[in-house]
Amino acid sequence: MADNTQILLAEKPTGKLAESHFEARQAPVPEPADGQVLVRSVLLSLDAANRAWMQGPTYKSAVNPGDVMHGYAIGEVVESRSPDWSPGDVVAGEVGWQEYAALDARTLHRCSDHRPLSHLHSLLGIAGKTAYHGLLNVPGLEAGETLVVSAAGGSVGSIVGQIGKIRGARVIGIAGGPEKCAWIVDDLGFDACIDYKNEDVSAKLAEHCPGGIDVYFDNVGGPILQSALFAMKQGGRISCCGAVSQYDGGAPASPVGIPGLLVVKRIRMEGFIVMDFADRDADAERDLSQWAKSGQLKVVEDILDGLENAPRGLIGLLAGENRGKRMIRVGPDPA
Amino acid sequence: MADNTQILLAEKPTGKLAESHFEARQAPVPEPADGQVLVRSVLLSLDAANRAWMQGPTYKSAVNPGDVMHGYAIGEVVESRSPDWSPGDVVAGEVGWQEYAALDARTLHRCSDHRPLSHLHSLLGIAGKTAYHGLLNVPGLEAGETLVVSAAGGSVGSIVGQIGKIRGARVIGIAGGPEKCAWIVDDLGFDACIDYKNEDVSAKLAEHCPGGIDVYFDNVGGPILQSALFAMKQGGRISCCGAVSQYDGGAPASPVGIPGLLVVKRIRMEGFIVMDFADRDADAERDLSQWAKSGQLKVVEDILDGLENAPRGLIGLLAGENRGKRMIRVGPDPA
Repeated sequence: MADNTQILLAEKPTGKLAESHFEARQAPVPEPADGQVLVRSVLLSLDAANRAWMQGPTYKSAVNPGDVMHGYAIGEVVESRSPDWSPGDVVAGEVGWQEYAALDARTLHRCSDHRPLSHLHSLLGIAGKTAYHGLLNVPGLEAGETLVVSAAGGSVGSIVGQIGKIRGARVIGIAGGPEKCAWIVDDLGFDACIDYKNEDVSAKLAEHCPGGIDVYFDNVGGPILQSALFAMKQGGRISCCGAVSQYDGGAPASPVGIPGLLVVKRIRMEGFIVMDFADRDADAERDLSQWAKSGQLKVVEDILDGLENAPRGLIGLLAGENRGKRMIRVGPDPA
Repeated sequence: MADNTQILLAEKPTGKLAESHFEARQAPVPEPADGQVLVRSVLLSLDAANRAWMQGPTYKSAVNPGDVMHGYAIGEVVESRSPDWSPGDVVAGEVGWQEYAALDARTLHRCSDHRPLSHLHSLLGIAGKTAYHGLLNVPGLEAGETLVVSAAGGSVGSIVGQIGKIRGARVIGIAGGPEKCAWIVDDLGFDACIDYKNEDVSAKLAEHCPGGIDVYFDNVGGPILQSALFAMKQGGRISCCGAVSQYDGGAPASPVGIPGLLVVKRIRMEGFIVMDFADRDADAERDLSQWAKSGQLKVVEDILDGLENAPRGLIGLLAGENRGKRMIRVGPDPA
């Protein structure tokens, strides 16, 4: 059987992630044990959280040097030693950064018939569900409210802002670079977008949100969270989705004014993980599909070809170069 | 008419508050203008928030050097130029640190017939309502949950913990000194109390809350909030009531791990101000009165005699020397 290309975490990064922290190797294609399934990877998801996994345990165990890099992928069953799966089944699971993985049958999820498959990572995948649940089931959003979202051009932020518009909110994005900001306004329909690399975020928030922010969807933490905290309206809500500014060697500085600002402004700050809302995933899939079908929501994907591009793809994602959901095409779609 | 003793903020404190920051003076008893009422102060409330007011505007305007120190008091109407009030009426309002004040009639609240009057500052006043709303209407509390409360011997904390016990929670206090901690367990009925001045708060939280904290009621901010954040259970809730550790020259250090810890542990942190729940004050008054009457809730008061003791009373309160609600008796009860 063909060789299995794998990418390992060679060294634990302490500062910025670099290609030298990874190492590719060829290994034999594994033999599934009883109760296992051999999966061929098709589309590998790249996520800012991948970097956080290298720092230590989060909502899952840490990735350690010498491990095949962890990653969530869509793939095809090529051999099954479980009565639950057959060759040709399309599944999603913790395949890691490799072409083939032998996985416990119970850890796999069956993919729907939806095509293109890439939507199962973007619109209907973790990105879409994180945006949907993290906005509508954590802080909630009413028509007429002012929503601010950071990493607004990313996989989650691009959907959060569009849901905000669908729900009748004023939506202000925060993203890096004038071209990306223009795209967010012109193509995604946000009311405005602040270029944090070239503009004073606090001054621009004051300009675009003269009555204060009702809901801030935070993907980044750090100084942008700080600016948003000061710009919140009394009684405002913050959905804490991630802290990408702090994953890749950024100083893990907390915002000042915690808890004083929360008290004086009666702010609610709440963290969430998308899996907590699995019982409401059917709602998310129904609404997101319908919005995409009607053209109200644009699905933005950024697909790189070839597993060998995963390290530079992740490094670029952490630097904010992607637009929408970034993934790696590891192999062809199932026939 | 008799002289009016006033205590002014003489100088804005930058570090720890000291008696030298205040100045007493005699002024004429003011003449109420049309629409005003002359109030004689009876019981002046001392609160940690008094110190925060000196730092700048909060939920009210700042106290500035040269101002009569701000303060909320219960008093008696001695002269009225408003049709709404008559001499002998018992009122509460922003009297400040002085014996007499001429106040706009519309800013006064009519006091109930409840006696002793001191209960209108403690059990049925801002302290009791802050405890009630800030626990039951912000994070909520279910029987069997683990509640941790800081400043557990203070005006608010002593009531929060007792409500927690009434609601069937396990209640762990945090307070300063072995005698106070013993009193909190033996007299107030908490399950345990951690002495933050002599014990390792993180280690003790791990010992007393092996399954993690469901609800943390935070009166202090700073390092104790930090320890609690790390000890929270997944999905835990934090009610942000105040940050007394930071009012009196403490470093305004935010806890580390914001927002990362909130995400990974799915924590909700929410600030509140008691006035936001005015529409539910009747519930609070009914329940608190009933609990006190049945003996389930002990009312703890710490009353100092004489307006001249207000500065040292507030300084001592900020150092944690009070047990329960501290107030100053400025003058005799109305006949």
